Amino acid sequence: MTLLQGIFSAIVTPFDQTGQLDIKALKTNFSIWNKTGLAGYLVLGSTGEVVHLEEEEKLEVLKVARQSIPSNMPMIVGTGLHSTSATIAFTKLAAKCAADYALVVTPHYFKSSMTLAALNDYYQKVADTSPIPVLLYSVPQFTGLSLSPELIAKLSEHPNIVGIKDSSGDMRVLMQTISLVKPTFSVLTGSAPILYPALAIGARGAILAVGNFAAKLCYEIFQAFNSKQLELAQNQQLKLLALSEQIASRYGVGGIKYAMDILGYQGKVVRSPLLMPDETAQKAIQTTLNNFQL
Amino acid sequence: MTLLQGIFSAIVTPFDQTGQLDIKALKTNFSIWNKTGLAGYLVLGSTGEVVHLEEEEKLEVLKVARQSIPSNMPMIVGTGLHSTSATIAFTKLAAKCAADYALVVTPHYFKSSMTLAALNDYYQKVADTSPIPVLLYSVPQFTGLSLSPELIAKLSEHPNIVGIKDSSGDMRVLMQTISLVKPTFSVLTGSAPILYPALAIGARGAILAVGNFAAKLCYEIFQAFNSKQLELAQNQQLKLLALSEQIASRYGVGGIKYAMDILGYQGKVVRSPLLMPDETAQKAIQTTLNNFQL
Amino acid sequence: MTLLQGIFSAIVTPFDQTGQLDIKALKTNFSIWNKTGLAGYLVLGSTGEVVHLEEEEKLEVLKVARQSIPSNMPMIVGTGLHSTSATIAFTKLAAKCAADYALVVTPHYFKSSMTLAALNDYYQKVADTSPIPVLLYSVPQFTGLSLSPELIAKLSEHPNIVGIKDSSGDMRVLMQTISLVKPTFSVLTGSAPILYPALAIGARGAILAVGNFAAKLCYEIFQAFNSKQLELAQNQQLKLLALSEQIASRYGVGGIKYAMDILGYQGKVVRSPLLMPDETAQKAIQTTLNNFQL
Amino acid sequence: MTLLQGIFSAIVTPFDQTGQLDIKALKTNFSIWNKTGLAGYLVLGSTGEVVHLEEEEKLEVLKVARQSIPSNMPMIVGTGLHSTSATIAFTKLAAKCAADYALVVTPHYFKSSMTLAALNDYYQKVADTSPIPVLLYSVPQFTGLSLSPELIAKLSEHPNIVGIKDSSGDMRVLMQTISLVKPTFSVLTGSAPILYPALAIGARGAILAVGNFAAKLCYEIFQAFNSKQLELAQNQQLKLLALSEQIASRYGVGGIKYAMDILGYQGKVVRSPLLMPDETAQKAIQTTLNNFQL
Repeated sequence: MTLLQGIFSAIVTPFDQTGQLDIKALKTNFSIWNKTGLAGYLVLGSTGEVVHLEEEEKLEVLKVARQSIPSNMPMIVGTGLHSTSATIAFTKLAAKCAADYALVVTPHYFKSSMTLAALNDYYQKVADTSPIPVLLYSVPQFTGLSLSPELIAKLSEHPNIVGIKDSSGDMRVLMQTISLVKPTFSVLTGSAPILYPALAIGARGAILAVGNFAAKLCYEIFQAFNSKQLELAQNQQLKLLALSEQIASRYGVGGIKYAMDILGYQGKVVRSPLLMPDETAQKAIQTTLNNFQL
Repeated sequence: MTLLQGIFSAIVTPFDQTGQLDIKALKTNFSIWNKTGLAGYLVLGSTGEVVHLEEEEKLEVLKVARQSIPSNMPMIVGTGLHSTSATIAFTKLAAKCAADYALVVTPHYFKSSMTLAALNDYYQKVADTSPIPVLLYSVPQFTGLSLSPELIAKLSEHPNIVGIKDSSGDMRVLMQTISLVKPTFSVLTGSAPILYPALAIGARGAILAVGNFAAKLCYEIFQAFNSKQLELAQNQQLKLLALSEQIASRYGVGGIKYAMDILGYQGKVVRSPLLMPDETAQKAIQTTLNNFQL
Repeated sequence: MTLLQGIFSAIVTPFDQTGQLDIKALKTNFSIWNKTGLAGYLVLGSTGEVVHLEEEEKLEVLKVARQSIPSNMPMIVGTGLHSTSATIAFTKLAAKCAADYALVVTPHYFKSSMTLAALNDYYQKVADTSPIPVLLYSVPQFTGLSLSPELIAKLSEHPNIVGIKDSSGDMRVLMQTISLVKPTFSVLTGSAPILYPALAIGARGAILAVGNFAAKLCYEIFQAFNSKQLELAQNQQLKLLALSEQIASRYGVGGIKYAMDILGYQGKVVRSPLLMPDETAQKAIQTTLNNFQL
Repeated sequence: MTLLQGIFSAIVTPFDQTGQLDIKALKTNFSIWNKTGLAGYLVLGSTGEVVHLEEEEKLEVLKVARQSIPSNMPMIVGTGLHSTSATIAFTKLAAKCAADYALVVTPHYFKSSMTLAALNDYYQKVADTSPIPVLLYSVPQFTGLSLSPELIAKLSEHPNIVGIKDSSGDMRVLMQTISLVKPTFSVLTGSAPILYPALAIGARGAILAVGNFAAKLCYEIFQAFNSKQLELAQNQQLKLLALSEQIASRYGVGGIKYAMDILGYQGKVVRSPLLMPDETAQKAIQTTLNNFQL
């Protein structure tokens, strides 16, 4: 297994106006994304509204994604569910759909019960039974729960746990994690605002929601850092910060889908209770895209 | 429809050692609970580990619960899911299973997107389509999200939204809510530590996890307050506070199930990733129960 | 020493338009307050802008306050400063000015260093050397730091520590404290929004900023509870909640002073960096006072 | 005025065993620090326990510091106090003591009253009257309050406000600030754990508490980044992270002083309520220093 590195997009799941899966839109998006320098994809992640999909819809998305993703590009699939048994079952299904990696979000409904012991037990069980390598997923803005560097380090010793997507955006946590894990464990940030700083202190890459509409910019930062064009990396990073804050952070999945529509992708609509940007928000997104010539 | 008031238990779902639903245990529990002064039940709530149940398991629990709950006692059912369409569909199923009320938790995965507009839209759609009256459910310790008194007041104008379970334990929120809603809207606390204070400032009752093993104590507080036996209410409340903090808050659903086992109920085991109390925790729970002669 | 109980006002320090102490205004205020049912006063507290006063100004305020406060009404003085030695020195000065009690706020600049050991050491040293009884003061909204019920209980064993002003507004903390301390230790809330609930679960009274302009209302709640007029207590409490939230919480000391001016007191102006309410805020305060016929 | 850049140390104030200022120790420290590559000093900052000093002690520290600091190295002085008038008065005193810059912490006791308007008004008044250039100081871990990038940008337009020490450690805030201010406004981080990332995205340098005992390491990171030795910068940064977390963050000023003593400086003791590290903490600090060969 080669090391997971580079820029990955956490892709959206397009729905049509009636709320149904829009497979054609998804295929169109892949045809554009595949030319942007992305290293691979996360399918059925948070931005993919996985929580809004029924199981058969998930399987359909996986089928189309696998057909659309070149075989040399990893397909990471979000497989975490609330109970351990449900997570294990769906991870096996994803492997059958030719997923390369399972991204497993922390269980989080019973936050105060998710002790180190409970989280360790959970991930050990999932990793023991998963037919494919497992990536940890810490995303406190959605779950209200973080994985500590110490637990990540402990879990990184499991031969089937090969990396983490850390979306906390907390540089200390990222740096402590990098200090504690072996070099072959892939630390990926899920926070676009800190992409360049994360690379600087040793992250291998990133899995990003803004990859849906700004993949090239993310890739430029990755390349600029690797070639020591530090001023370019800094400038592009400040641009990415603004795009991420003003579109993804402020307007969520609906904002990302709307930006995609403007830029030639097919973001389409979100599922309720998410809302699409209202008129004011639409103008703000358009202005942001204009300002940064995206 | 009569006003929802009194003490309700947010019941656990017992599982056997193999992790399967234990229907016999559930029936045994009802046979005891029905004699404790409870006004009714919440089935498939947070404490019922609803997030760990498959749909067919939920339906089985509802069937058994309805058979076990006297027809004059309301059966409230937790029906909230991530997407609006899934919530609506399951609320209809619960109504078919003779649920009296649907308790609908705030959608919460995309926390920062759950604006007033999004939450209002969600609850209006659910209430418009629900065959049974809807109760709002605000439980920030699990969801990381609170309903504001202003939004609760707005939603309380919908003819099919008849009350709220507020588990925040925040007296200000509770008082502001009570100030803003009409008297026929049932404000129920979900926080045992503030039961008596909540009643004092106008809550109609409570839906409580500690109702699983301390229903009588809760009922005594309700009665003591209503009969102006204030010193008794205060003393029993301080006892309830300690029980709630030392068992339910500290050890979660596993702690509640273990306490139930000690007291003659059949709590049985939790589903992973939840863990049952370890030996130290077991002793602490036993000591707490002894200290308060429960 | 008799038990500290009843409603105390945390009085403002009036400044004139040039920013100087306005002693005449202070005397006028006392002449009104003394007829409102208050049990006593807190001088040089947070609301008294103690942090904005030079030492000689503090001594002048104390002199005037002691002259204005009937000898049978306790004068509590805020004496906490950053270093232990400074706190001890000023506590001795306050005692010389005939203060009855010293209210000692938690040291808080080095928050993460304020361990249980550090706080315990601090309060032991202050209490050991204070010529007058000490009250603990926990006010996380200003200090970012809370005293835990366990530490309060430990400190309550010191013969010279006789009570606490807990301004957290957290009912659980208040109840746990009351559970742990001896009956002669006075637990007073500093949070007007929970006055009635606090009394219901055993608080002896309150030290309140809203006492500056709504002392009578606070006293009515105290009396109503003591005479078991529970509906009256509830109704007045909901009124007090609104007044406290809409004036004191929203507009701070400047809001309180402006409300005082409207109601015949002499609040006068605040010291910079605090600001007086702007025109919009002034109208809102006037409206609130009208709404509640204060 | 040349641009403020490089590594500055936020120096401790040594006290002897009786709690008195230890001027000799202070002089000794400067004689070592002056050879470490530091660009200058912050005197009377948080780490200098400025809140524990009387005014005459502050003036004595300034006199000695100015004598000990080479004239080509800037002496920055912490001058912020609670009231605007007190801050202005002490800033003028510091200027008389030949301070080069005044570092002015956000007023923070009345946190919820420190609106954008109040903070803007405060800093405008201080900057208007200060004889020396002003640096903003945002340190939420001590004050519970952050300066927003928007306010910093607004204040940066004042000709006498020339930079900021941002100790939040929040990369987004730092990056947004750098995006918004002119290039001549010095953005300095006060957070050692993010020194290299901060430099990478455009910070001009840092003012650091760990500069007391690890100035050389900080300087190496600064130099390594400037000469594009990125792997060296990363490795030294991970070392600095560990030192900062395990000594400064965990044990505060007492930990820093103890580490200084081990390394040949004269940290001496802290003033109560701060405590020196206990025996366990002392061993942990010694081990950390050994591990990193400091």
